[in-house]
This record gives sequence, structure tokens and C-alpha cells, in this order.
Amino acid sequence: MPLTAVVALPAAAPPIGHVVLALAAILAAAKLGGDLAVRLRQPAVLGELVAGVVLANLDLLGVTWFRSLTGDATIELLAQLGVLILLFQVGLESTVRDMLKVGVTSTVVAVLGVVTPFALGWGVGALLLPGHSTYAHAFLGATLTATSVGITARVLKDLGKTQIAEARVILGAAVIDDVLGLVILAVVAGVIGAAETGVALSAGGTGLILAKAALFLVGALVIGVALSPRLFAGAARLRGRGVLLATALIACFVLAALASAIGLAAIVGAYAAGLILEDVHWREFTRRGEQRLQDLIAPIAEFLVPVFFVLMGMRVELSAFAHPEVLGLALLLTVAAIVGKQACALGAIGGGLDRLSVGVGMIPRGEVGLIFASIGMTLTLHGERIVDAGVYSAVVIMVMVTTMVTPPALAWSLARGERRAAARAAGPDAAA
Amino acid sequence: MPLTAVVALPAAAPPIGHVVLALAAILAAAKLGGDLAVRLRQPAVLGELVAGVVLANLDLLGVTWFRSLTGDATIELLAQLGVLILLFQVGLESTVRDMLKVGVTSTVVAVLGVVTPFALGWGVGALLLPGHSTYAHAFLGATLTATSVGITARVLKDLGKTQIAEARVILGAAVIDDVLGLVILAVVAGVIGAAETGVALSAGGTGLILAKAALFLVGALVIGVALSPRLFAGAARLRGRGVLLATALIACFVLAALASAIGLAAIVGAYAAGLILEDVHWREFTRRGEQRLQDLIAPIAEFLVPVFFVLMGMRVELSAFAHPEVLGLALLLTVAAIVGKQACALGAIGGGLDRLSVGVGMIPRGEVGLIFASIGMTLTLHGERIVDAGVYSAVVIMVMVTTMVTPPALAWSLARGERRAAARAAGPDAAA
Repeated sequence: MPLTAVVALPAAAPPIGHVVLALAAILAAAKLGGDLAVRLRQPAVLGELVAGVVLANLDLLGVTWFRSLTGDATIELLAQLGVLILLFQVGLESTVRDMLKVGVTSTVVAVLGVVTPFALGWGVGALLLPGHSTYAHAFLGATLTATSVGITARVLKDLGKTQIAEARVILGAAVIDDVLGLVILAVVAGVIGAAETGVALSAGGTGLILAKAALFLVGALVIGVALSPRLFAGAARLRGRGVLLATALIACFVLAALASAIGLAAIVGAYAAGLILEDVHWREFTRRGEQRLQDLIAPIAEFLVPVFFVLMGMRVELSAFAHPEVLGLALLLTVAAIVGKQACALGAIGGGLDRLSVGVGMIPRGEVGLIFASIGMTLTLHGERIVDAGVYSAVVIMVMVTTMVTPPALAWSLARGERRAAARAAGPDAAA
Repeated sequence: MPLTAVVALPAAAPPIGHVVLALAAILAAAKLGGDLAVRLRQPAVLGELVAGVVLANLDLLGVTWFRSLTGDATIELLAQLGVLILLFQVGLESTVRDMLKVGVTSTVVAVLGVVTPFALGWGVGALLLPGHSTYAHAFLGATLTATSVGITARVLKDLGKTQIAEARVILGAAVIDDVLGLVILAVVAGVIGAAETGVALSAGGTGLILAKAALFLVGALVIGVALSPRLFAGAARLRGRGVLLATALIACFVLAALASAIGLAAIVGAYAAGLILEDVHWREFTRRGEQRLQDLIAPIAEFLVPVFFVLMGMRVELSAFAHPEVLGLALLLTVAAIVGKQACALGAIGGGLDRLSVGVGMIPRGEVGLIFASIGMTLTLHGERIVDAGVYSAVVIMVMVTTMVTPPALAWSLARGERRAAARAAGPDAAA
């Protein structure tokens, strides 16, 4: 008998040389763009987006290779892994307890900061896109809801202000904000899905989607918080290298797959996993001298996250900016995004809080707005994309502007708040 | 004018939920298998291979999902990235200078340790596979050449013996060995490629392949060593996070793409990049308090490398072991692999070296043998695979056995060497 095919042969190998060359170009562009952004006192993510815009739009000069990468499924996979890791990492910065602790102030700030931009975004859609469905208008509102806690945190860190009261309120509200935004996304996407399948939209159906989203989040958080210490205690008994990192990634991936399986975005699960996991869970690992989980996740994020942002930037065609509709939509959307978050200031009650800084700190949309927009591009209703190319470009412009205005605006408003506090301290009668 | 398609729409998104669930399963299997291997005092990589074998062969019990992953192009991509990162990481453990320093002893050990197993493997092929072409026999010899420096280093580290003279000789020889093995792979694969295209195999053609491989390696090493300090000095001027890691990954990816473009395996480039980069290049980054590159690469390797080994294990079908030809081939191949490397002992001249330990330390083949075999599965000659499924299974068995026998054998032979040295010290006349 000859030696027969007794093992599974390798899958058609992806052209690894092509993939790694693309990764090298993307990483180089991300770091050069990031450097420029940081020198201009902007968050690095802005530079990564702009780098992507520049690379892809080299096709205007005849260089089409970078534009072709926007259709590459392997790069898309790595970008999606990157954004999962980013949301997991952002989730790790907070705990479920942190979310409960920030209490009334953060919750009121978060709710006002979600409801107002949602309504304003919906209104902008209804005003400028009368030919689109109500679903598309609602989706536009949804893209304005979630504050980018990553950008906010990084800006506060750059300014050395992570410990002030306003920072805690902003970060706490941003956390709740993200979850509210993700629930809104799930609800809007679910409602669109229901409409697409032709089933009439019922209050019961909407309630079911909301219940499913809420049940997943609450269930994942409650069960996760209960199970997580046991998971890591069990994992700590395993020998060999990389157990802590692997266990955390498994938690992230399983919750992401679970969220995806019940129809939520995979990033909802990754973020929930990040919230659940706490330093105390891997005390046994750090006691042995292993690195903290955050330090293990950081290099993976540094590798994969820029792929997401550069790719997002690459999806912008500069020719879009020649369309007055896009520019008008982008302008009104940006105004709605900035003004909408100033409603947060109304919620920043008590404790002599610098309300303006809270409102300004909630402005950046960053990755979450882009994620929403890219999900919207994958949703169709009666064969029409919910977020078409023009709307996507407008959202990207909104994200770029809100990201860009925050660092100087927040630095200015915090300095103003400090001057006022100093004035109150100098004239105690005025402060009483 | 309606808003038209002015941006590139996202590529058909891979089913991210499916991919991350597969990654979670692979990581869990890798860590459980690794734990068992470490408890049995084996290298973790053995446990990862066995875990893959177990998962995929659950199809014998009706669970076919894991077997289906062996045909998943996205998992294959991540595995290929993993092995690139591994070879880069292994390359980082040595420098170009280290290779020059080990000098005559390591070179003689390496050459004997490559020529002898190559000849024996070729002979085993000619003996047991008379129906296969001479090219297939030569390829089988090539799979036996390269010592796995990763496994060797990890075993020596486990035994706390990285600083003894024998360890330096073994590691130095393993480095040269890897390069020689990669050159042999390039030559054999190139010769097969020449035969496939029908061009008669000429000494000139063979020489050209060898020259191309040698030119790439020497060129990459010489130019790389000259350019690398400037590259990192330039990168150190960039602001923002993750610049060191990105710069190193770019070097790795560019050399991998370059190697791939001139027809070498991408891992050759990744390994060369690792050899070129040295701690001194990123002194500026560590001076600022950033982590060492090795610590930044390690988490990425911990994430992606197990994907490669578990996937490799998953390519084994246990039903292959029912074929006497496979078992016979695996047995003779394993004997050739172990006996062939004992020729190294003849080269371990001078300095009162424990020759047996040098020979035993060169035994493990690990990832490099598997990489060779998986490359062989992608090569065809007149429509027939150079490494067919049965031969691949035999190579996997050889890798598993050589990996498994090394830790206990090396522990025993080092203890024996110490006893002999102690006896010499007690009776100085006998040692003189």
C-alpha cells in the first residue's frame, strides 16, 4: 500500500510575504503619523487615521497598492482582532465596581451625554438626509453617543490630571457611556435587522433586543465577576509560560464570540471581559514575579491596534470632500457631537466641579464612533447600506475633528477652572 | 446628487466570532497541553503539539469542528505570523557577533551535525521510499538538519546550565546549524522548483540558488548590521508609544517579505532580522525607561506561537499510525535524527568538553523540522507533493520523539559529565 493522504494538508497558504509587507507599511505609517500628531499635541490615534488617509489616497497619484489593502481579508481580520484587543484593554482600565462607585453624578452625566447627542444626531440625519430611512437617522444618532474613554484617558494622562475629581467623573461617565452606547448600537442594529427580515417592528421585539443586550451584559458581568477569580486560581496551577496572558485572552475571545453569537457586536464581549477582569485575580501570577496583565496586553495592542486605525483612515477617499453634501453633513454632525456633550455639564452637580471641563472631556469620539460607522456599513435594509460611503466619510470627519479639538480645549478649560478655584481660595467670601 | 460611494467599503468581514472562538480553544488546549508537558518535565511545545493531535482527532468521536480549522485560512495566517515571530525571537537571542565568536568548535560541530543527519535522512528515504523521487529523499534529509535552538535553550535554562562551556558550544552550533539548515532548505526547495519547471538541473543553477541564499543572508546581515543602529537612532526621535516594538516588527516583516520575494522562506528573513538586532540598538529606548524589545515581543509570541504548534499537531491524523510504512519510516527517521547528531560529539574538540552532552543537546528538532515538513507539503513536482501526508506524519513523530527524549537525556548526560569532572579533580594524575 502506498503512503496515502492520512493528514489534513495545509490550507491554501495566504501570501505571507504580501501580508507582512503590508503590516510593515501600516506600522511605519502609524508611527510616523503618531509622531507628527504627538508633536502637534494631538493624540497619536489622530496621526494614525491621517496616515491611513494619506496612504490610500496615494492612488490619486497612481500608487494603488495601499488602496487595494482596504479590500484584503487578512488585513481586515488583523484589524478586527486589534479593535477587540483595544476594547478589552480599555475595559481592563475599569472594573465593574468602578462603574458602580462613580454613582449618581457619573450616571446623570453619562445619560445626558448619550441622550442629547443621540437626539441631535437623529435630527441632523432627518434634516440633511430626508431620502434615507428613519433607521439610518437613528443610526447616525447612535454614532454620536459613545465617548472614547481611551482618548479621554490618554489626554488626561498627557496633562497629568488623572487624579482630579473632574477626571474621575469624566472617566466614570465615559465607561457608562460606552456601555449605553453599545446597548443603543445593539438595539438600533437589532431593530434594523428586524425591519430587514420584514417582520413588523413591535415594541415587544424592541424590548426583546434590549432585554437580550441587557441580559448579556448583566449576565456576563455578574457571572463573569463570580467565575473570574476561580478561572485565574485554576489557571495559576498550570505550569509553563504565558498562562496569565492566554487565560485573559481566552476570557476576552469567549465573551466576544458569545456576544457575536447572540447578535451583539464582538467588541461588546471583549469590553465586558475587560471590565470583569481585575488585578486581584492575577495576584498569584504577579506574586511569582510575572508581569501584570496590562503590560502583557500592551505589546499585542501596540502591534494590532494601529492596523485598525490606519485601515479606518484608508477607507476615506479624499474625493469625498469635494461633495458639498458630505461637508455639510460632517459640519452639522460635528456641531451636534460637540454641543450634545455639553449637556453633560448640566449633570455635573455638586462638589464644586468644573462643569465646562466635564463637558469638554466628553467630546472625543475616537474609535467607538468609527466602529459604529463601520458596523453600519455592514448593515443593509432592503439592499441599501444603512451607513453609505458619504455618511461614513462625514462620521470620520466628525471623529477627526472631535478628537483633534479635545486636547487643546481641555487644557484650556482645566487651566480656566484652576484659575477660578484659585480666585475662590483667595477670596473665601466669594466661594462661601 | 445623492451621496455616492466615495469611500472603499470594508472587505467581506471574516466571521470574527468564529475566529476568536477557535483562538480561545487553541490557546486553552496549548496551555493545558503545555502544563502536562512541563509536569512531565518536557518542553511545553511538546504539549502543544499533542494538544493539537488530540483536538483534531476528536473527529474520530464525531467532533469535526477542530479538524475543520486545519483548513481555515485565517487561522493559518495567524499561525504563519506566529512562526515568523518565533524565529525572530530566537534570532534575538543571538547576535551576528555571537556567531563569529563561537569559532572553530561550534562551526565543526554544526557542519558535522548538518551533514551527517542530511546523509542519513537521504539514505532512509532511498531505503524506505524507493517510489519517491531523489528530490523527496533529499528533502527528507533536509528536515533532519536543523537543531531547534529554542527547545535547546529552554532545556538548558530549565536545568540552570546556560553558562557552561558545553551550552555555549551547543547554542553557537545550533545558530550556525539553523542557518545551514535554512540554506539547505532553500537549495533543496530551489532545486525542486527548477526540476518542476522542467529546466534541467545544472550545477550552475544549483550554484545560483546557493549564491542567492548566501547573498541574501550575508547581504542582510552585513547591510542590516550597518543600518540597524541608524534605524533605531532615527526611530528614537519619534514620539508616541510603541515605537521600539513597531520598528523591530517592521525590520522583521520587511526582511521576511524580502526573503519571500527572492524565493526563500519568509522565516529566513525573520530569523536574520532577529540576529541583526541587538540590545545596544535600543539603548536610547531603555534609557527612557521603556521595556526591552525581548519583553515586548514575548507577549506577542505567547499569543501567536502556540497557534502554530497546535495547528501543526492538528495536521496529524492518528489513523496514520495504523500504516506500518509510516511507523517504519518514523522509527528509522528518528534513529537517523538522533544518531546523526552524535557526529557533533566528534567536533567538540578541546577544552575538556563533555562531548556526549554536546551531541545530546543537538538532538531536538522541534519547530524547524515541522516548518521544513510543512514547506515540503506546499512543494510539488509533476503534480505530486514532495512531502506527502504519510511522510509528514513520520516527520511529526520524529520531531515529537527527538523533542521528548532530549530533556531527560541531557539531564542525565550533564550529571554524568559533572561526575567525571569531579573524579578528574579528585585524582589530578588521571586528568593530566
